[in-house]
Amino acid sequence: MNHLTGIQHLDSSQLNMLLDTAQRMKESGEDYAGSLEGQCVANLFFEPSTRTRFSFEVAEKRLGAHVLNFQESASSRQKGESMYDTLKTLAAIGVKAAVIRHSQNGLMDDLQERTGLALINAGTGNEEHPTQCLLDLLTIKQEFGCLRGLKVAIVGDIHHSRVARSNYYGLTKLGAKVYFAGPACLNQTGAGWVPRGCWYDFDELLEEMDVIMMLRIQHERHEQTLAMSKDEYHQQYGLTEERARRMKRGAIIMHPAPVNRDVELASTLVEAPQSRIFKQMENGVYVRMAVLYHLLCPAAQRQEQPVNKGGERHGTFVKAGLYA
Amino acid sequence: MNHLTGIQHLDSSQLNMLLDTAQRMKESGEDYAGSLEGQCVANLFFEPSTRTRFSFEVAEKRLGAHVLNFQESASSRQKGESMYDTLKTLAAIGVKAAVIRHSQNGLMDDLQERTGLALINAGTGNEEHPTQCLLDLLTIKQEFGCLRGLKVAIVGDIHHSRVARSNYYGLTKLGAKVYFAGPACLNQTGAGWVPRGCWYDFDELLEEMDVIMMLRIQHERHEQTLAMSKDEYHQQYGLTEERARRMKRGAIIMHPAPVNRDVELASTLVEAPQSRIFKQMENGVYVRMAVLYHLLCPAAQRQEQPVNKGGERHGTFVKAGLYA
Amino acid sequence: MNHLTGIQHLDSSQLNMLLDTAQRMKESGEDYAGSLEGQCVANLFFEPSTRTRFSFEVAEKRLGAHVLNFQESASSRQKGESMYDTLKTLAAIGVKAAVIRHSQNGLMDDLQERTGLALINAGTGNEEHPTQCLLDLLTIKQEFGCLRGLKVAIVGDIHHSRVARSNYYGLTKLGAKVYFAGPACLNQTGAGWVPRGCWYDFDELLEEMDVIMMLRIQHERHEQTLAMSKDEYHQQYGLTEERARRMKRGAIIMHPAPVNRDVELASTLVEAPQSRIFKQMENGVYVRMAVLYHLLCPAAQRQEQPVNKGGERHGTFVKAGLYA
Repeated sequence: MNHLTGIQHLDSSQLNMLLDTAQRMKESGEDYAGSLEGQCVANLFFEPSTRTRFSFEVAEKRLGAHVLNFQESASSRQKGESMYDTLKTLAAIGVKAAVIRHSQNGLMDDLQERTGLALINAGTGNEEHPTQCLLDLLTIKQEFGCLRGLKVAIVGDIHHSRVARSNYYGLTKLGAKVYFAGPACLNQTGAGWVPRGCWYDFDELLEEMDVIMMLRIQHERHEQTLAMSKDEYHQQYGLTEERARRMKRGAIIMHPAPVNRDVELASTLVEAPQSRIFKQMENGVYVRMAVLYHLLCPAAQRQEQPVNKGGERHGTFVKAGLYA
Repeated sequence: MNHLTGIQHLDSSQLNMLLDTAQRMKESGEDYAGSLEGQCVANLFFEPSTRTRFSFEVAEKRLGAHVLNFQESASSRQKGESMYDTLKTLAAIGVKAAVIRHSQNGLMDDLQERTGLALINAGTGNEEHPTQCLLDLLTIKQEFGCLRGLKVAIVGDIHHSRVARSNYYGLTKLGAKVYFAGPACLNQTGAGWVPRGCWYDFDELLEEMDVIMMLRIQHERHEQTLAMSKDEYHQQYGLTEERARRMKRGAIIMHPAPVNRDVELASTLVEAPQSRIFKQMENGVYVRMAVLYHLLCPAAQRQEQPVNKGGERHGTFVKAGLYA
Repeated sequence: MNHLTGIQHLDSSQLNMLLDTAQRMKESGEDYAGSLEGQCVANLFFEPSTRTRFSFEVAEKRLGAHVLNFQESASSRQKGESMYDTLKTLAAIGVKAAVIRHSQNGLMDDLQERTGLALINAGTGNEEHPTQCLLDLLTIKQEFGCLRGLKVAIVGDIHHSRVARSNYYGLTKLGAKVYFAGPACLNQTGAGWVPRGCWYDFDELLEEMDVIMMLRIQHERHEQTLAMSKDEYHQQYGLTEERARRMKRGAIIMHPAPVNRDVELASTLVEAPQSRIFKQMENGVYVRMAVLYHLLCPAAQRQEQPVNKGGERHGTFVKAGLYA
């Protein structure tokens, strides 16, 4: 693994390896404190971010890396410098990895073999948001031990969501079954990446699901395309308190955040017992540490063999009996 | 002490404890270098700042903390995320303390028990600026050994100044007497927090005061409300060279800065022998280190007993015979 | 050496000392990792930058310094604070050096003896860009061992370029001969700093030069002043593939970047075998480490005697027989 551009390109062994390392880091993060000592990592966020941005920065600093925060407005991008030349420049001055959030689809694939940097996708266009997927997988795995056979609903504007897409790949690869729901006018299953036959009525799904993952609705698009108020959206497609009461016993609520409170999710549910929203954020630091560790740390790379599912490598998950 | 939201809520023991720690840090800062090793502190400045902002960052880094600098324009605040959700997010990813400057009164009180973070007020609305007060107290204490019985004039737009307010609380709690002066149209003593009977004519105070603390005038408001040029302000209410010559022997000039040179203070006085303006800034780092240390360092928190005024705890101040 | 404001003020011993230290840092950077441990350095960039900005930050962090990144828009400069007061403030809170990029000529000279900081010029107006010069000198020295007698062409808008100016001083002091070329309408030799008699026709120079240093053309100015399209510029004054084929055997191409591909330089030449553009960037980190080390590290300052050209001080260059 030289880059993390998307979940689509990883197999289940690689996913499990990353989740396993993340879990070990959560349990004994101190052991990894100096892993990236003296290495430089640059964060290039071309779209707003709080969680992903700071979660990466915390991860980088916990591993001992030097962190550079690139700001487009203060950079030579203002003089017309291309992304390729910007990344080559960072590589030339000693940067080892670039964490990139950008609106442009295809950016990572185009650049990954050409810059000399390890590239990490922190959300690109509507394609992929792989570390969000990894933190979601880790949260589910911590809850249920194993993903195989779990039923996961992803609800909202599926078609345009990079979170939905990465999660669809990741959940499927680890054996969960994914169900989509949301406004009918957004039902474009069969188009783009959304497979035919996965679209359901939210209310029919509710009682069957182990995980309900609500997506953020972008107000601006929402009110124009859907011709619907926030309150109407909440009543028709949101996870209301009433719907939450109909959830299966032991099922959990997830959301990549920021949450539009009382739009896709009742505000009272954000910190409800069945919500894992803040736990997702917490796990975000560990999966990002794991990604950086596997990409940049020579010790980690020597271990990067096919994963022995019964073996020592799985560490805490195995000990905890979490693997099926 | 779990937060530092204002001076109003501290008693004199707590103030002395913080000043004492700050003084020890000034004398042997190296001893504290690793106190916050591996802990994350976030700086959230929603208003411009040079001194306070960088002074906190230097303090955090000297104590070994990981520093995150939050920028509203690059964050999910752009997607409508509330301050509460922003702070909860930071807590979830492992941040221990948030240093906040904001224009909104009441913000800290509203949030302090709900986010899981230690909150540190770096200037809020026109309410409080507690670390500015602490650095002012430390500067005065270094000069005079003790605050009890000192006479301190605070001059300018008292009513709207968070610096004046925090200093009024702090100086009074430690036994100094505070006198206010400034443009008559801003004399609103008895209204808001400004107590009745503290307003004086600047020229009458001059020769009696141990400390003259000039406040920054905000030009925009100044020229509109006061209908007065900068030069007229300087002549009528500023500390001119002529007024400085009438100051009591041994008295000092203070200013929270940035100074409008030749408006509230003659430019030549900024670095005059009786000015402590740059010493105030220098002390700012140590009081902020002390605040962070007492809020975040377990060792410091175990010591947080009521302070024995004759005892070992006061360290250097006691040795130097600074306590009355 | 207390500041690095320009190459004009340095003699060849100082230049060689800095280049020598930079070379040693390139070969064994780890040895210098803690040189600035606990010291604070502030970066103040008032103009966009990628290379210089991050190159300094990497250099500072590799030496173990605490780094403060000043942003004008979030600072008290918004309240009218002057550069002098800003720098005095940074000094008061413990900052030891300020790295400054600014559009205003004369800024550094005006401030250098007054703030208590070591000032480092990261590009000022059209005057000087000394660390760019140093990295260019290092790159040339690595290539040819010695600068004496080398022929270097600097091509483009010479008159307004701080890079050209610093390089003219540095190259000349170390014994290279500098030739200028570019659009005739920009031939202002004899005016300003550009000495009379250095201006040549690019095509006549090509086959004689050891180094061809192309400058960045600022599109906006270019198209208005020169009344010429980018393509016309490229054909008339750019280093085309055809011109590159006529270069002397062993000659190298340099550019301070960002490159306007296919304007001053054919895009295919940026990473061609004779290009040193990314090596220049790499060297930028080491010369900046060397500058910081000599300005801030007591150990380095004790060594700052006149340089013994045959002695141990030149370290690796001497061992490698690089001195004439």
